[in-house]
Amino acid sequence: MSLSIHDIAILGVGTSKKFGEQFDKGVDDLLFEAGFEAIDDAGIKPEQIEAGWVGIAYPFTGLSGAAMADPLKIYDIPITHVENYCCSGMDAFRNACLAVASGMYDMVMACGVEKITDQGGRGLPGLNVGHTVLMRGITAPSAFGLAFARHNREFGLTKEDLAHVAVKNHYNGAAHPRAHFRREVTLEQVMKAPIISGPLGLLDCCPISDGAAAVVVTRKDIAKKYRDDFVMVRALGLSVYTNQLPFDPEFDYLAWRPTVKAAEMAYQQAGIENPLQEIDLAECHDCFTITEILNIEDLGFCKKGEGGKFVREGRANIDGDVAINPSGGLKCFGHPIGATGCRMIWEVTRQLQGRAEGRQREGAKIGLAHNLGGLGGVVCGVTILSSDDKHK
Amino acid sequence: MSLSIHDIAILGVGTSKKFGEQFDKGVDDLLFEAGFEAIDDAGIKPEQIEAGWVGIAYPFTGLSGAAMADPLKIYDIPITHVENYCCSGMDAFRNACLAVASGMYDMVMACGVEKITDQGGRGLPGLNVGHTVLMRGITAPSAFGLAFARHNREFGLTKEDLAHVAVKNHYNGAAHPRAHFRREVTLEQVMKAPIISGPLGLLDCCPISDGAAAVVVTRKDIAKKYRDDFVMVRALGLSVYTNQLPFDPEFDYLAWRPTVKAAEMAYQQAGIENPLQEIDLAECHDCFTITEILNIEDLGFCKKGEGGKFVREGRANIDGDVAINPSGGLKCFGHPIGATGCRMIWEVTRQLQGRAEGRQREGAKIGLAHNLGGLGGVVCGVTILSSDDKHK
Repeated sequence: MSLSIHDIAILGVGTSKKFGEQFDKGVDDLLFEAGFEAIDDAGIKPEQIEAGWVGIAYPFTGLSGAAMADPLKIYDIPITHVENYCCSGMDAFRNACLAVASGMYDMVMACGVEKITDQGGRGLPGLNVGHTVLMRGITAPSAFGLAFARHNREFGLTKEDLAHVAVKNHYNGAAHPRAHFRREVTLEQVMKAPIISGPLGLLDCCPISDGAAAVVVTRKDIAKKYRDDFVMVRALGLSVYTNQLPFDPEFDYLAWRPTVKAAEMAYQQAGIENPLQEIDLAECHDCFTITEILNIEDLGFCKKGEGGKFVREGRANIDGDVAINPSGGLKCFGHPIGATGCRMIWEVTRQLQGRAEGRQREGAKIGLAHNLGGLGGVVCGVTILSSDDKHK
Repeated sequence: MSLSIHDIAILGVGTSKKFGEQFDKGVDDLLFEAGFEAIDDAGIKPEQIEAGWVGIAYPFTGLSGAAMADPLKIYDIPITHVENYCCSGMDAFRNACLAVASGMYDMVMACGVEKITDQGGRGLPGLNVGHTVLMRGITAPSAFGLAFARHNREFGLTKEDLAHVAVKNHYNGAAHPRAHFRREVTLEQVMKAPIISGPLGLLDCCPISDGAAAVVVTRKDIAKKYRDDFVMVRALGLSVYTNQLPFDPEFDYLAWRPTVKAAEMAYQQAGIENPLQEIDLAECHDCFTITEILNIEDLGFCKKGEGGKFVREGRANIDGDVAINPSGGLKCFGHPIGATGCRMIWEVTRQLQGRAEGRQREGAKIGLAHNLGGLGGVVCGVTILSSDDKHK
């Protein structure tokens, strides 16, 4: 049988019961919830899973595939731990799809998990120490703050443009029963929030969350036996650039090269020529409000410099030209680092099936998930999914 | 085109110039040496590499595919960082092979690197803290020491049996220009070495080394255009068990379940019915001398309980029934954790090409690499390679 990634189907998806601060739960609990929800959603038994990939970005001891095997009690199969900064979850999914396309396995699971709100030196503080050395003092808010300054100078982007992103994403996320924050915010609240790294205020920043997500991956011919509304893989783009990105003399802070390159790959694989016309919704990596604006441009939904206007005019709303972050995004839904990529796949899958738990994009046929990782954005994954397997 | 893992070929291999304490070199230097040696050996240009997988077990900051992209200056392609304890390198290779078999990429690189002799709290000491919690006080030497005790009671294995493993592997490694230790040891030296965890003495333990290894992977039809002596992939077994292995009530310390399961997978994939008759050489994970004896049994080269006798009688020698660790193994060649799996692939490849740098197994046609990871051995990879693509 001749296979390619276009024969790969998503059979089931799941997440932890909620995202956010979960001091009463460990990594195993979160992965247990997500993994078995995906297994139940797929209508399979755990022992049908032939291989696994698990994305975790912050090592809590040393890490291996046992981090997935133990909570799910799935033993004696190959399981790979994938780590690619904040893009770990999406890369776990990508490797899972490639493995099924290789013909080696029929039914596999990709998942991601992060438990960082109470890890002390092993969590974000640990990151800050490591990355402060690596990044020569630049932190995530300051790197993206610099991007705003440059965008403002070149194209006149304003702090109010940023605030519209937060308002939109909280509007979407407030309706989602699993979101970290389940409340809307006003333009005034965002504008007046305490400054973290000028001009980015508290409500321009995504939270750090505990959570997990899981995806059951198989071939189309097998998926057909289980359900009618399986979702097809159209593209698996991923691009890595340098850890020295913020210090690259060619880097102008206006476009994120890994996003541009991963999107090129993905559009080519999926045969998409006009993203804005062809794609109905996109979960994109809004770790900061400015990041979403850059991503909207880098993904080709509008011209460079017009991202702020695109959001301000409502074109990224749930009923706009393309729904950007219908889940609420990292900004409102939360950001458990290694889980986020799979969480995006989960949301896009359910949107394409017409069973979004929060705000549903009506008639969604093609969805995109964009996952950015590394301080400065060194790694980017762009996955395109389709509800219609006949789509080119 | 219909592909499977049996269409996958190794086109080029390389390692760092040496293995051992390399205080004057960083991770980037080691990966640079290994990566470009593999690229040169393959006869390709760096820009032909379409995707990468890099195995690193100890995070030196946060880790991503950029750890491979930066030293090799290969940008704008997907690169996955794989972490699976000491089995990280072999799992990087496995994922690389699956990806080529998926048809998504034609030419990729798998590599592994570790730089741990001077990492302080980030290196082995960090491991010890983490694993002391995870393993409730059991360390690697003590876990394998317990295995000796049980083996001794059940089958009468002696400390002198262990010493024969060290003597054999140092005999092999002493001839290898890249080995960490380039000297032979006598039975008396091994027997009288200071005790680390009874009965395991200093010369029963492998060292911790700095080093890197890299493998260029492609399809057979492409490999043919570059060289005649490419090596074919016959099997990619990998099996994960529980982090609680040493506390599993069913675990008798006599057989390592992940090795047994991964070997079953691999022999089935390769169509091997009698490992001892069909396999010419095996690089196997001799982190301790007792581990090699257990592995020889678990891989099916002899019956359970006869591993000591097998080595003592010279059947594992370079000219024995099956050459076990012709390179000198972890014991003598060294053990840069994340690199070891790819280093084994490198050695087996060169043995099958008749260009081993140390001791050559004459007429080698089929080779096996066995990589064990996790304290207690939670993850195991078994890869089988063949010089003869017509072999079943």
